Amino acid sequence: MSGTIENRLKELGIELPSAAAPAANYVPFHISGQQLFISGQIPMIAGGPDFKGKVGANVDVETAQQAAQACAINILAQAKSALGDLDRIVQCLRLGGFVNATPDFTDHPEVINGASNFMVEVLGDKGRHTRFAIGVGSLPRGVAVEIDALFAIE
Amino acid sequence: MSGTIENRLKELGIELPSAAAPAANYVPFHISGQQLFISGQIPMIAGGPDFKGKVGANVDVETAQQAAQACAINILAQAKSALGDLDRIVQCLRLGGFVNATPDFTDHPEVINGASNFMVEVLGDKGRHTRFAIGVGSLPRGVAVEIDALFAIE
Amino acid sequence: MSGTIENRLKELGIELPSAAAPAANYVPFHISGQQLFISGQIPMIAGGPDFKGKVGANVDVETAQQAAQACAINILAQAKSALGDLDRIVQCLRLGGFVNATPDFTDHPEVINGASNFMVEVLGDKGRHTRFAIGVGSLPRGVAVEIDALFAIE
Repeated sequence: MSGTIENRLKELGIELPSAAAPAANYVPFHISGQQLFISGQIPMIAGGPDFKGKVGANVDVETAQQAAQACAINILAQAKSALGDLDRIVQCLRLGGFVNATPDFTDHPEVINGASNFMVEVLGDKGRHTRFAIGVGSLPRGVAVEIDALFAIE
Repeated sequence: MSGTIENRLKELGIELPSAAAPAANYVPFHISGQQLFISGQIPMIAGGPDFKGKVGANVDVETAQQAAQACAINILAQAKSALGDLDRIVQCLRLGGFVNATPDFTDHPEVINGASNFMVEVLGDKGRHTRFAIGVGSLPRGVAVEIDALFAIE
Repeated sequence: MSGTIENRLKELGIELPSAAAPAANYVPFHISGQQLFISGQIPMIAGGPDFKGKVGANVDVETAQQAAQACAINILAQAKSALGDLDRIVQCLRLGGFVNATPDFTDHPEVINGASNFMVEVLGDKGRHTRFAIGVGSLPRGVAVEIDALFAIE
């Protein structure tokens, strides 16, 4: 029975944006065997905030969590574009969380939780993933967070 | 014949700590097909040093190597928790090495060797892995090193 | 029919360097099932520029693109060493792009395009990959770019 995940998104009041075209000579996703690879997603969503800035300086943790959630929304938008039906997701295997942070910032796990909590809220146990959360010195377009993803699919 | 790797750990005088519970809404490992994904591990081990600080500033390369080894010990602790028997490891496929370093630091390979050497010491040829070693601007809780891992298993 | 990709390299006037031996206790590649993992490659090629420096400070975007291409050339050199025949590549699944950049740098996608464009130029549609492009605080030996890779192979 398809459409379960999309119904869950509706219940949560979340509308997936159009999957963004990549900014360069690469692709937003690849399906290989039973794995779905998603390119690093930035938090820009048409009509939404741009989430630019550096966490620990001019971006606070709460705003950075929202940025992480926006990255996760864009990841699911790419997954829907790749799979047609999000119910083909067997498991979110891994998120790679990059936080654009000051050298003394230490709350990266709290920031990436904005994406992790969202994945579990939408996908349930299938949303539970392995991850890393690290602080990078800079990110494309000056955004506060970038996240890539790997899913097991059927 | 199981227990080979655990005997090797005993010979080396290494006792695996309890696998740490994740600090947030994610999981420490996933098994998918014949791959075992391990979340990014920090070097904190109960009763041990906390390995906080920045390599190139207040953490020297030798201490950072010990931190990298502590990350590798935590990776094996998670692998044991996932697999029951570490002899199910076919190959350590990849380590991702993140060093919390100053902008002018250049000896990341030497730091991550603390984990690479340990993997080979414990797992033999099965411990030889691909890897990257990069310098990040900051890490969770201010630790000096974080490492994630991917294993082929049977 | 083998040798197609190598002929393409010849047409482009590109000679793959000898695959560099790893600088430490790890391996440059692993084949596992139908996946080929390549360790993070730096842009050093014997006889070529060393591409050291920080993008946004003493390295400009155009030079950094050349560094990214040099990383990609080293990735293909490792792939040839692993596979014998580059025609065994089914798809470049993922590139991980690390740019050694100043905290206010924002053009990481343009830098990593140096590798992405090269992959597509050599491999055609098989070169189209998912990727992330991030700014790191420092890199081994002070190089400007490091890139790792994952291929689907047959």
